[in-house]
Amino acid sequence: MAEISGVLTDRRSIRKYSAKPVDDNLLNELLTMGCRASNTGNMQAYSIIITRDEKIKAELAPSHFNQKMITEAPVVLTFCADFNRFNKWCHIRKADPGYDNFLSFMTASIDSLLVAQTVCIAAESKGLGICYLGTTTYMAHQIIATLKLPKGVVPVTTVTLGWPAEKPEQTDRLPLEAVIHKETYHDYTIRDIEMYYKEKEERNDSKQFTEENNKETLAQVFTDIRYTKADNIGFSKMLLQVLNDQGFMNQ
Amino acid sequence: MAEISGVLTDRRSIRKYSAKPVDDNLLNELLTMGCRASNTGNMQAYSIIITRDEKIKAELAPSHFNQKMITEAPVVLTFCADFNRFNKWCHIRKADPGYDNFLSFMTASIDSLLVAQTVCIAAESKGLGICYLGTTTYMAHQIIATLKLPKGVVPVTTVTLGWPAEKPEQTDRLPLEAVIHKETYHDYTIRDIEMYYKEKEERNDSKQFTEENNKETLAQVFTDIRYTKADNIGFSKMLLQVLNDQGFMNQ
Repeated sequence: MAEISGVLTDRRSIRKYSAKPVDDNLLNELLTMGCRASNTGNMQAYSIIITRDEKIKAELAPSHFNQKMITEAPVVLTFCADFNRFNKWCHIRKADPGYDNFLSFMTASIDSLLVAQTVCIAAESKGLGICYLGTTTYMAHQIIATLKLPKGVVPVTTVTLGWPAEKPEQTDRLPLEAVIHKETYHDYTIRDIEMYYKEKEERNDSKQFTEENNKETLAQVFTDIRYTKADNIGFSKMLLQVLNDQGFMNQ
Repeated sequence: MAEISGVLTDRRSIRKYSAKPVDDNLLNELLTMGCRASNTGNMQAYSIIITRDEKIKAELAPSHFNQKMITEAPVVLTFCADFNRFNKWCHIRKADPGYDNFLSFMTASIDSLLVAQTVCIAAESKGLGICYLGTTTYMAHQIIATLKLPKGVVPVTTVTLGWPAEKPEQTDRLPLEAVIHKETYHDYTIRDIEMYYKEKEERNDSKQFTEENNKETLAQVFTDIRYTKADNIGFSKMLLQVLNDQGFMNQ
């Protein structure tokens, strides 16, 4: 197994996978390591859905905007905020659970994301490749239907997993100084922003991306094409409705 | 640096720290690894507040219910969902950001939690100890005031960090079968719940905990004392108000 520093430093998301299957024992080993992550009060308010079946992956695909990783990866992991199991335990033990509210959804989401990232790091240390799909929160209602998630369960993120069949370039990151703050938050001046985004804006791939999308600035590619206000507001409404429907908005 | 499998398998949260300081270069190395975690569209919608100052840690303490780790740990890291920086970049680049909604808050929260867990694993691999503080979402409004977080920024989780001065017992976990589902969700029967929670309920520490709290079942310790409905609903209201105040509830 690899040395951690190298794994964390040299990583990249993998979207193309070889035909080599992911062994069940190996996967269970990764998931077991994931479950050692910190969690709230040791309630383990999460569930992980392991989808390998071609038919179910095909059903999930539209929820993930038909990104090809869903059908091409040997394993799809859907990490869910889950108070259903804990609630059921409470009910059979004469306890009255109060986890049908927004705070409990956040608690369970945090728990499930710490597990997800631990599973991903464990996977990468074994030479596997992973890709997160942000579409999970956009299309949670459809994923709930496909994966038959009961009340008390909401999908938070999805990871595709397999042996890499590509080694893409690493994507850029802002300088560390751009994302850390000493003692308290120090808000950004225009000059700070100019300085921190300079390298990103001057990259050839950024310039090409801006040009291909017929935009004047890279920022406009994000706001006008990739993550638009109209989409975000539409998805927000759907997600809040999902939280309500799944029993997390009692207040 | 340690081998990953051992680090992930043998870990435990550390609440007591030695007087040995955490070097700034080491901390920056861990944070840099953290920033290599996957994030949405490479927007890096997070910020990390590094608090070492005794006075500011003392100001943070009540927000974390005066858990002693806050004042005793050499480093407190507050991981925040942050669209403020990205919005500012958009504004100076003639782009109109649409990230003032609930979906964007979830996106930024996910990003910040993947960074947090990566930093924690990197830290543990160096022999450091960490502890997550779930109180962050309960008392976000106070943390915002103490850390001077502007609109577009919400604290999501807090981690205390330092060299361990204890090696507590590992806490138990449910059997892996209890938290995974093959292909789609398989809801739990009463028999499943009995089986999955048997070991937890039969542990001596669980029995002692139940007795000390004068409860009939372990589940009642959670519902009646540790995580009550009244508290959860109160904190939910405050957190939703925080999302509104910080500019994440436009829909």
